[in-house]
Amino acid sequence: MPTEPIASFVRRAASQEQFLEVIGRDEAIARFHRHVALRPCSAETVPLAASLGRVLASDIAAEVDAPAFDRSGVDGFALRAADTSGADEDTPRRLAVNPEVLACGVAPRVEVAPGTATVIATGAMIPRGADAVVMIEHSEFTEQDGSAAVDIFRSAAPGQYVTFAGSDIGRGEVVLRAGRLVTSREIGALAAIGRAAVPVVRRPRVAVLSTGDEIVPLGAPLRPGRVYDSNRAIIAAAVSECGGEPVDLGICRDDEASLEAALRGALTCDMVLVSGGTSKGAGDITYRVVGRLGAPGVIAHGVALKPGKPLCLAVIGKVPVLLLPGFPTSAIFTFHEFAAPVIRAFAGLRAETRASVGARLPLRIASERGRTEYVMVSLVRTEDGIAAYPTAKGSGAVTAFSQADGFVAVPQHAEAVAEGTQVDVQLIGRDLEPADLVIIGSHCIGLDAVMAPLERAGIRVKLLNVGSLGGIAAAKRGECDVAPVHLLDPASDTYNRPFLTADLALLPGYRRQQGILYRSGDARFAGKDAAAAVRAALADQTCVLVNRNAGSGTRILLDGLLDGARPVGYPNQAKTHNAVAAAIQQGRADWGLAIATVARQYGLAFIPLRDESYDFAIPRARLDRPAVRAFVAALAQQDVRHALIALGFALD
Amino acid sequence: MPTEPIASFVRRAASQEQFLEVIGRDEAIARFHRHVALRPCSAETVPLAASLGRVLASDIAAEVDAPAFDRSGVDGFALRAADTSGADEDTPRRLAVNPEVLACGVAPRVEVAPGTATVIATGAMIPRGADAVVMIEHSEFTEQDGSAAVDIFRSAAPGQYVTFAGSDIGRGEVVLRAGRLVTSREIGALAAIGRAAVPVVRRPRVAVLSTGDEIVPLGAPLRPGRVYDSNRAIIAAAVSECGGEPVDLGICRDDEASLEAALRGALTCDMVLVSGGTSKGAGDITYRVVGRLGAPGVIAHGVALKPGKPLCLAVIGKVPVLLLPGFPTSAIFTFHEFAAPVIRAFAGLRAETRASVGARLPLRIASERGRTEYVMVSLVRTEDGIAAYPTAKGSGAVTAFSQADGFVAVPQHAEAVAEGTQVDVQLIGRDLEPADLVIIGSHCIGLDAVMAPLERAGIRVKLLNVGSLGGIAAAKRGECDVAPVHLLDPASDTYNRPFLTADLALLPGYRRQQGILYRSGDARFAGKDAAAAVRAALADQTCVLVNRNAGSGTRILLDGLLDGARPVGYPNQAKTHNAVAAAIQQGRADWGLAIATVARQYGLAFIPLRDESYDFAIPRARLDRPAVRAFVAALAQQDVRHALIALGFALD
Repeated sequence: MPTEPIASFVRRAASQEQFLEVIGRDEAIARFHRHVALRPCSAETVPLAASLGRVLASDIAAEVDAPAFDRSGVDGFALRAADTSGADEDTPRRLAVNPEVLACGVAPRVEVAPGTATVIATGAMIPRGADAVVMIEHSEFTEQDGSAAVDIFRSAAPGQYVTFAGSDIGRGEVVLRAGRLVTSREIGALAAIGRAAVPVVRRPRVAVLSTGDEIVPLGAPLRPGRVYDSNRAIIAAAVSECGGEPVDLGICRDDEASLEAALRGALTCDMVLVSGGTSKGAGDITYRVVGRLGAPGVIAHGVALKPGKPLCLAVIGKVPVLLLPGFPTSAIFTFHEFAAPVIRAFAGLRAETRASVGARLPLRIASERGRTEYVMVSLVRTEDGIAAYPTAKGSGAVTAFSQADGFVAVPQHAEAVAEGTQVDVQLIGRDLEPADLVIIGSHCIGLDAVMAPLERAGIRVKLLNVGSLGGIAAAKRGECDVAPVHLLDPASDTYNRPFLTADLALLPGYRRQQGILYRSGDARFAGKDAAAAVRAALADQTCVLVNRNAGSGTRILLDGLLDGARPVGYPNQAKTHNAVAAAIQQGRADWGLAIATVARQYGLAFIPLRDESYDFAIPRARLDRPAVRAFVAALAQQDVRHALIALGFALD
Repeated sequence: MPTEPIASFVRRAASQEQFLEVIGRDEAIARFHRHVALRPCSAETVPLAASLGRVLASDIAAEVDAPAFDRSGVDGFALRAADTSGADEDTPRRLAVNPEVLACGVAPRVEVAPGTATVIATGAMIPRGADAVVMIEHSEFTEQDGSAAVDIFRSAAPGQYVTFAGSDIGRGEVVLRAGRLVTSREIGALAAIGRAAVPVVRRPRVAVLSTGDEIVPLGAPLRPGRVYDSNRAIIAAAVSECGGEPVDLGICRDDEASLEAALRGALTCDMVLVSGGTSKGAGDITYRVVGRLGAPGVIAHGVALKPGKPLCLAVIGKVPVLLLPGFPTSAIFTFHEFAAPVIRAFAGLRAETRASVGARLPLRIASERGRTEYVMVSLVRTEDGIAAYPTAKGSGAVTAFSQADGFVAVPQHAEAVAEGTQVDVQLIGRDLEPADLVIIGSHCIGLDAVMAPLERAGIRVKLLNVGSLGGIAAAKRGECDVAPVHLLDPASDTYNRPFLTADLALLPGYRRQQGILYRSGDARFAGKDAAAAVRAALADQTCVLVNRNAGSGTRILLDGLLDGARPVGYPNQAKTHNAVAAAIQQGRADWGLAIATVARQYGLAFIPLRDESYDFAIPRARLDRPAVRAFVAALAQQDVRHALIALGFALD
């Protein structure tokens, strides 16, 4: 028995905890900032067009006036206002016209003497002697015997249609200051004073590196036990969004030599971000390597945060080095808390302020005492405010962060937050974009087909997968427009309707075929009907079931089928059809219940059990909403119905 | 006398009006959209990292589960929950340890039989037979006589620390839909399902072209009568911000052949934007050229908008061609109203919704009946809401748009909007960023020096230049924190204090030297004192004054000096020191009053008249505000005082 490796693993895993000196978030940030100068990077000069999105590195003062000369605002005649005094439609004033046409770009040579006027174009230079311009519409030009004159039909006030030099921007004026973010509006001001190039803050270069023997590059085939390197992609993109320039250093294997070489090379950047390799067993490798790269070294190792406890902050010389946890939501969350503010400061950007909104918790949140926990939530508008649904997905899920609307901070000392508590939700996006249609309940791949025309029409749909019973509860609380459900009432052998209260209407959806999944060729199941298949499974102690979670429609069906029997694997309760199919396909289990569509997707054999109705409970109060009516209409559309049939569902 | 060109100019200018069929904004947009298909451009596949900021061209469905297998969430032992039933600190349960270490990336080969457990790392594959994981902290590994075992000190529930396959993203699930804007969060989801490249909407190529003989490229020297080509820079940047790819076609001269060649070449793009050349005299050239490029041709020429009346909308084949007015604020405003929505549609982006806010007008707005006028405003927070100050700069100013917070639409039928009216302000930026310090009054170049340390400290300053009297009025209404003023009370020969009411405090600023400006070498003024200089000017009918606007401190001074006399040029009233200096430097005038600092800046000679006090009126109620205290402190700073002295000002 190869016990040596096991003991070694256990020792490493158990001991890594000792290296963590878990401190609070604020203390971690304070220590970190003590060793990192939060100053903008040096300046570089770029062509004006390239400054879009950059931060100005110095004050920009105008070296010229804009406009640089007194300018006419209309086509007409430049003249002395006093010469038009009393002029109107009935009694025009006649002036001699000077022998000059003041087109744009022409410097006047003739002075406007009293009693004269000079024709002038919009944007042209006002000549000496004139103090106003009369529009061409209020004049009439005449030529008689070689003499040019103009009749003016409206008196002018001094300064009329004259735009004075420097009225837009004055010479010497500081037009924009260092630290200003350049948008098209700033580019307009810079261009108006003739700046072809401007000094901007250099983008901080941020090295991004992944570690872990289980991660594979995007696009490569996924072997068993492997996961795609999503952290590097999302962190690099987030670096760009913070004003940095990501330097992609790829995936580094989990051995000290490779890590040390990679990290030393990365230290030429302004910051180094390593994700993965902080958990026990592997984490101490990276931690030890970082510890010997230089002073001051490791600043904090272990933060009382969930997600994010194994976070390691270090500074080597002037370069901050952050070892982010491997789980996606932990990685991106700690990135935003610890790395992003530093990158923004290096890029010369202001600190970002998160918007927040008050909301009510419709479910209880369990929390750990001892760590500040950040719970990702999805927000739903209701009649009396906003409800914040905790994402059940955990820190290993990318979509826990990418689909959440915000997060709630649960303080270190709290053990749970009761249902109904009012909480402050920090928003992740810039605004809370209200959904037009909220669907809460049991998700199905067929729902994607129904939602397609809605999303194409620009209807914003929010979808929370909490299971059938959760959906009904949400519908009764007025938190959703549509609750997809597939609940069998064994007593009446009817789907869904028995579970609805009077305030909910039932919109028929489609039928899904539930049945037993197994690997093709498994002789225990091949050729049998459902009852026989179950008997064969129960008779074989090596035959493992993958069950479903209590409360799910599929579980109710299975329990009915088992009629009190407890096959091997019964305690193992997956939460989705996909998880059931994956377990069987990969050999972790041999049989389970799921829908035919999923069986086909995973290449598994299928024994039909029964049809179930996948319907939609809709609060009656919501039936008139435009988005709800659109949903109802979408279900009736030909292309949607064809898509559902193609997916293996049945319609009436 | 060259009368032929004049007559020709007048004819063209007067007749261009006939070509305008002025229609309402909504009608113009409706006609335009009838001929342009507002659909996204075709798709192109790009590497994932390059998709940041792009729009997805098709729905993306997951081809794999994420995670692809049931995974452990902690380091510990994978086992059957039932085998730990009743285990606690006092009564551990002992299990045999299987000869396998489940590190990340390792596919299990040993089944967890009843009574056994397998050591497992965070993120590793759950083996067949196990339905839970116990944390290493709650276990103790032992080896005795070659036999490996583990004591479990805490009972486990089924599913504990197991993350099921597909719990993040399920195979077959539509992860993101066509039309979704890709941010770092979307990149995370795409990377989690292994996408190395994604289909995005091609960026629409938008040709940007300037016309006009008076415009010069940035960085080139500014000859008399010329202006820098700011439109092309700001429009190209705005095209980028709308999701387009600007194609810079430079400056085109105002002749039909050049324009036609340039426009025909531009038609290979998705849209063509031409700025300048819409006003009378030049506009009909561009309009005629566009008219013969192809069908359907000109869709609208003339829109009842201010700014923006001469706007011309055309469609050649499928390509929209917009002739934007030459004045910067007109150009950028019509760009946002007519071009931006089309570019966004081509780029697959949603229409942008402007935020709006209610505000009160502290000044009357005069408007033209017959055109919907968009008045740019600056917003100031006051105790009872927001005040909207119209920008006095006009549509020829870049900063009218770039410094405004928003705009107010004055309907076609209205002739004026009364002071005190509540208006709806459409915001230009995304949010209304409240200023920390509001300064309203008479601007001075020295103020930039005082503001420098404030801005560096991150204090947001808003500065509205409305003159000394306007500043006092604003301070009394509680609309500003600081009102810079330099008003002489001739009766008491005292500056500023006589104009303050009891609710305003006076913060002494600095002294500016006012005097007479003239071109060096002008014998009429050289060597004389102020009184003698004035006598000389009054005696010479060819000697032209450039005056200042009524209500300005400088005007009061001049009127005192003139003592009722009216020199030639008296009606011509510039509004700033810079305008006075520019007029004298360029020969439009020969003398005027301004401060010594400006004289030096323009290389003009200077006859001192008197010192004036440039002080700050501060509402007493504001004195305790942190930003106000910072302002007071800045004035006392050594480096600020040095800067003021270097600029030619005097301090006590």
